Amino acid sequence: MVQQQISVVTLGVGDLPRSRRFYEDGFGWKPVFESDEILFFQMNGLMLGLWLKDRLAADMQRDADGGSPAIALAHNVACEADVAPLVDRLAVHGGTVLRQPDAPPHGGFRGYVADPDNHVWEIAHNPAWPIDAEGHVTFGT
Amino acid sequence: MVQQQISVVTLGVGDLPRSRRFYEDGFGWKPVFESDEILFFQMNGLMLGLWLKDRLAADMQRDADGGSPAIALAHNVACEADVAPLVDRLAVHGGTVLRQPDAPPHGGFRGYVADPDNHVWEIAHNPAWPIDAEGHVTFGT
Repeated sequence: MVQQQISVVTLGVGDLPRSRRFYEDGFGWKPVFESDEILFFQMNGLMLGLWLKDRLAADMQRDADGGSPAIALAHNVACEADVAPLVDRLAVHGGTVLRQPDAPPHGGFRGYVADPDNHVWEIAHNPAWPIDAEGHVTFGT
Repeated sequence: MVQQQISVVTLGVGDLPRSRRFYEDGFGWKPVFESDEILFFQMNGLMLGLWLKDRLAADMQRDADGGSPAIALAHNVACEADVAPLVDRLAVHGGTVLRQPDAPPHGGFRGYVADPDNHVWEIAHNPAWPIDAEGHVTFGT
């Protein structure tokens, strides 16, 4: 089943407290999760992540200063076996594989593909975050 | 009422047919609207836009080669009068105003603010696109 779905928008940030002030005090949003390197906000059917930009760049196997915007869009799929075929199909249709799918330390399974304009998509299975029939993604633990 | 809501993710693209192949044939997604400069996909409670990057840069009053990623996140608000106060509040909390709110030719009302890491947010009222109580945004005409 194809879902037209963005699971996460992750913004690379240089200073987490500085960004937290902007998003909490500026927008008035409250995080659903926080650690010393990442914040998540539950949005309207997707998550917004603020992640230290060197960690994000390392995760996507892209130099933080390498011309790629410090941002990743994620499309989450229903099971681990769905990750690699979609990564391959995107590569066939003009994408560039940045990271072949593997298991990150925080769990799940994911690969990274850049679109023709270098916008980075993470294709991921995250068993902890439920996705409903309409593609709405909810923070889980 | 504060909604934790992203209304649109707009990716600047250099070649619309090339991007269309990637998103339609790669992801298998179908656009809900298309013109000779923009495509919209209805996603899970938000829209994904592919817009010619020079048009997007002009709209955000930012040079297309000026170091800003060719991407904008939009947060839509309930009425035109809500746009300017939020733009001002974001500026107070570490944001940089790129474009003071005004009315674009395609309708509605919007301004642009960069967050502390230069991620660009459009703060907009778009009367054509309904937003439900959970913040889910639907393509309208």
